[in-house]
Amino acid sequence: MRVRNKPWAPKLINAHPELITETPADLRGKWQTRFAKPQPIQIEVGSGKGQFIIEMAKQHPEINYIAIEIQTSVIAVILRKLVEEPLPNLQLCHADGQAVTAFFEPNEIDRLYLNFSDPWPKSRHEKRRLTYKSFLAAYQEVLKPAGQIEFKTDNRGLFEFSLTSMNNFGLHFEQVWLDLHAVVTPEENVETEYEQKFSIHGPIYKIIATFPTK
Amino acid sequence: MRVRNKPWAPKLINAHPELITETPADLRGKWQTRFAKPQPIQIEVGSGKGQFIIEMAKQHPEINYIAIEIQTSVIAVILRKLVEEPLPNLQLCHADGQAVTAFFEPNEIDRLYLNFSDPWPKSRHEKRRLTYKSFLAAYQEVLKPAGQIEFKTDNRGLFEFSLTSMNNFGLHFEQVWLDLHAVVTPEENVETEYEQKFSIHGPIYKIIATFPTK
Ligand SMILES: C[S@@+](CC[C@H](N)C(=O)[O-])C[C@H]1O[C@@H](n2cnc3c(N)ncnc32)[C@H](O)[C@@H]1O
Ligand SMILES: C[S@@+](CC[C@H](N)C(=O)[O-])C[C@H]1O[C@@H](n2cnc3c(N)ncnc32)[C@H](O)[C@@H]1O
Repeated sequence: MRVRNKPWAPKLINAHPELITETPADLRGKWQTRFAKPQPIQIEVGSGKGQFIIEMAKQHPEINYIAIEIQTSVIAVILRKLVEEPLPNLQLCHADGQAVTAFFEPNEIDRLYLNFSDPWPKSRHEKRRLTYKSFLAAYQEVLKPAGQIEFKTDNRGLFEFSLTSMNNFGLHFEQVWLDLHAVVTPEENVETEYEQKFSIHGPIYKIIATFPTK
Repeated sequence: MRVRNKPWAPKLINAHPELITETPADLRGKWQTRFAKPQPIQIEVGSGKGQFIIEMAKQHPEINYIAIEIQTSVIAVILRKLVEEPLPNLQLCHADGQAVTAFFEPNEIDRLYLNFSDPWPKSRHEKRRLTYKSFLAAYQEVLKPAGQIEFKTDNRGLFEFSLTSMNNFGLHFEQVWLDLHAVVTPEENVETEYEQKFSIHGPIYKIIATFPTK
């Protein structure tokens, strides 16, 4: 996501250590202490401006959510919304999702969301795709046994790659949608910013898959 | 495929026992004797009017092909073409593909094609879909180790089902296409009748996958 630099962002982040961390490795194994109450934790890697995870947190007070986003000026937008309307079950993490194993202990996470991840269309960049096998291995390490991944995208090439990559990794497909909006109602599907913007141009793909036990 | 009854069909079939069999179980383990020379055997289940398998047989003289089709009036159309223009590496089999294990010995087949199989959209009919797990198990039995399946369809529901079914069966995805015609040239892709007819209405899906070793 290309975003304008937001000069106010670092200051806002520094002002709210109770809502956002930039040193998630310090919380490894202790994430429950950041929430109002201990509950299953679900994370999103690459949360963008947070429309999805904020709505999920509102709809599911029984789940604790963590939004991981690498860009300062993007996660600051989520933070600003959270300052205005606090949510006891949403924490922000300004960090690179590639290092999830440094941020979470094995079994600390119940479910992982990827939404409209950067496609990295050139094959020489395939290792950067968030569904590349090294990422899947990292997710597997922090997820509890039989933990699930939910992935949505409008990018055909990335979805083709991800189906193959997830299958080859040994993930068990629960359900695949090749045109999500043709079959689900808005109530059944929490939309992301990208999803709202791009679903008029073509189908939205989705998969829910379960990690094999190690 | 709905086809008009062809009164000439049974007679033509009876007249050409050298090209078509209606008792394939008698050939179990002996299929190579039906061809001009012994070569790897590839089969298509549900060949329709045969455009795909005839063109494949022409392009690949180094492969022996078998077209399996259940409808008399449909396979008779392939037979008529074959009578007009004989091909030493194509044999027809008028039978139900469900019984492949009765027709072929283990390891007798190198590769299996499914093209635009009947979708059976109602979930109470899912067992009839040619990618249902019982069919996959039958294909696995007759395919040589690491044998492959190639499947094309325009039917979104059937492809979603098949991705999940094949994954759950343990098939290893080699490549997935969610809009085949957007990326391949006509030279790289032998089209079927259905493909020609329906590709203007939406994307053609394709998967190549390898069976796990038993
Ligand atoms: C295309 S945007 C999609 C945003 C949002 N999920 C949506 O669907 O609207 C991808 C986001 O992932 C973030 N991102 C990319 N790589 C990341 C990584 N390694 N760790 C954390 N965030 C990442 C980008 O900064 C960007 O905000
Ligand atoms: C929708 S048509 C597609 C024909 C062709 N493959 C194409 O792509 O143009 C499906 C064909 O599969 C055949 N078929 C369905 N079930 C079958 C089975 N169990 N064994 C053999 N053929 C079958 C039907 O008779 C029909 O001709």
